[in-house]
Amino acid sequence: MTTSGYRIAVAGATGLVGRTMLKVLAERNFPIQSLKLLASARSAGMTMEHQGTTYTVEELTEHSFTDVDIALFSAGGSTSKTFAPIAARSGAIVIDNSSAWRMHEHVPLVVPEVNAQALHGHHGIIANPNCSTIQLVVALQPLHDAFTLKRVVCSTYQSVSGAGNKGVEALLDEVPNHGAGQQSARSPFAMQAAYNTMFHTIKEIDGFSEEETKMIHETRKIMSLPELRLAMTCVRVPTLGGHAESVNIETEQPITPAKIREVLAQARGIEIMDEPQNNIYPTPLRAHDRDDVFVGHIRPDDSVEHGAYLWVVSDNIRKGAATNAVQIAESLIQHNALAFTPLEKW
Amino acid sequence: MTTSGYRIAVAGATGLVGRTMLKVLAERNFPIQSLKLLASARSAGMTMEHQGTTYTVEELTEHSFTDVDIALFSAGGSTSKTFAPIAARSGAIVIDNSSAWRMHEHVPLVVPEVNAQALHGHHGIIANPNCSTIQLVVALQPLHDAFTLKRVVCSTYQSVSGAGNKGVEALLDEVPNHGAGQQSARSPFAMQAAYNTMFHTIKEIDGFSEEETKMIHETRKIMSLPELRLAMTCVRVPTLGGHAESVNIETEQPITPAKIREVLAQARGIEIMDEPQNNIYPTPLRAHDRDDVFVGHIRPDDSVEHGAYLWVVSDNIRKGAATNAVQIAESLIQHNALAFTPLEKW
Repeated sequence: MTTSGYRIAVAGATGLVGRTMLKVLAERNFPIQSLKLLASARSAGMTMEHQGTTYTVEELTEHSFTDVDIALFSAGGSTSKTFAPIAARSGAIVIDNSSAWRMHEHVPLVVPEVNAQALHGHHGIIANPNCSTIQLVVALQPLHDAFTLKRVVCSTYQSVSGAGNKGVEALLDEVPNHGAGQQSARSPFAMQAAYNTMFHTIKEIDGFSEEETKMIHETRKIMSLPELRLAMTCVRVPTLGGHAESVNIETEQPITPAKIREVLAQARGIEIMDEPQNNIYPTPLRAHDRDDVFVGHIRPDDSVEHGAYLWVVSDNIRKGAATNAVQIAESLIQHNALAFTPLEKW
Repeated sequence: MTTSGYRIAVAGATGLVGRTMLKVLAERNFPIQSLKLLASARSAGMTMEHQGTTYTVEELTEHSFTDVDIALFSAGGSTSKTFAPIAARSGAIVIDNSSAWRMHEHVPLVVPEVNAQALHGHHGIIANPNCSTIQLVVALQPLHDAFTLKRVVCSTYQSVSGAGNKGVEALLDEVPNHGAGQQSARSPFAMQAAYNTMFHTIKEIDGFSEEETKMIHETRKIMSLPELRLAMTCVRVPTLGGHAESVNIETEQPITPAKIREVLAQARGIEIMDEPQNNIYPTPLRAHDRDDVFVGHIRPDDSVEHGAYLWVVSDNIRKGAATNAVQIAESLIQHNALAFTPLEKW
């Protein structure tokens, strides 16, 4: 790498998150010396514009990473499983948006506002958390620091864009049909998304969806609270983009809406939007194309000794994926954490 | 009244709930001697078909109830406030779907599966609870009887039909437009419903929405548990009909999904739909036009000593409004509770 910038690769560059990663890199003036756009053989040869330059998408292979400093991956779990170690052994730091590496003991799972320090001593693979988890921990960490969390109960309202462009296309295909049984032929979901609610894939073993289990385990890992008591219900609703979360927190210390606003106003990455009597509160449409985590409808919860309600909304493609990945890259630079030794078993 | 049936009036007969009340009366072969359809002056003169007979809608006035045994009201809070006492003084039992009378100390608030006994000694006005509350208490009461509830945390996913035909029309107007700022001119809501989530009207005094406060107070009244610890977040999502609820219960006694299924399988008005690994669980589309309360995605919640998750879905226009009102009328007959003395101050 040179002082003029970094050699960047985006794997999965043609997808919804990949394209947004490119947009966010440009918006934030990320120092780029060279840019390589990688995708599956199917998309190789496509051209994409980036900051006035036309790039030809290349097929992702084991030789893709020899001249790369940082590789942003958003190409699915199996691609990450195969290619992240290859990239790391080639000397590229992988920031991976899939779930493949998140719970690996030697892979930091990072939300820069919460645990940038976890980047130190990494081995070349860094995981970007699940979208719903990112926005939750951005809101929870400052409240834990101030009031000590005892228990968190969360129900999500997640958009179809969590499944990428296919999810968005399926919902838009379906909205002209108002009844049941009108699922889009190209839907990635198990049922009709329009005018409906659904769960993510549910595991037979314990009845939890994969998304619910991810949120519990990832939140504990990011916050370094392996015993944190968490209850999670993850629901897909017919919104195009932006995830919302209804969160009840129970704390050790006394807590009030005024104290919460004071703490969150000082926290990084958060915008308080809380004049509900004027209908000013976070919504998926208001969070669209924004990088912050929005918090509102803050209320005292007197069903526990010290409790409160929060409503947490963020753009799942930005802070929930692309923006957080780019922020991890920025943190690596700020913390001088670019040098690494790959694990022998990578 | 005669043995051949009852003299029925439906006030608000042209609205979404009023029309469904008529449909439910017919489906259940409710014994009707005479039927009077009442609405505002604007709708008077309209004709409506019911079981092969054409009825002319009459204007609701203080003289409407002299020849009525049971009046089903779904005409809005201010109409109920004015006309329910007039109807009761005229000798008609009012079953009122508005929120006007629900918390009145001399008005039973009834979900027949839960508290039909509250009908005894009524004074001519009986309140039908809030839609979201009805489906919640149908699920909670048998679990309270078996395991003793300590605390309930609930987040709702409510359809636009809670605001009647206008809510449905607004969402359908809006779905062709995918961005923000495209609110339907005839929307009853404070903001765009399509691809969005919103709260009900929020009160400045405590930051709770009216819906959230109703759910807390009404649940306690119906279950006769004035101290029950409840946390409620009410959210409108872009579904046309059917309300869903994410519910975390904490109980005094040990609880497991198997025990919950055993209890709910015996309970009235409930259908368990819980094979989530096969994507079989309650959804708004599956509950559409059904009278039951559907419960699924039942999981153990180990974030408390004895806890569980439930997902509760019902058709808000049927069990949440019309069906429950007709069931109250049926209960009055079954319990021989048609005779009443109006309050002097009615």
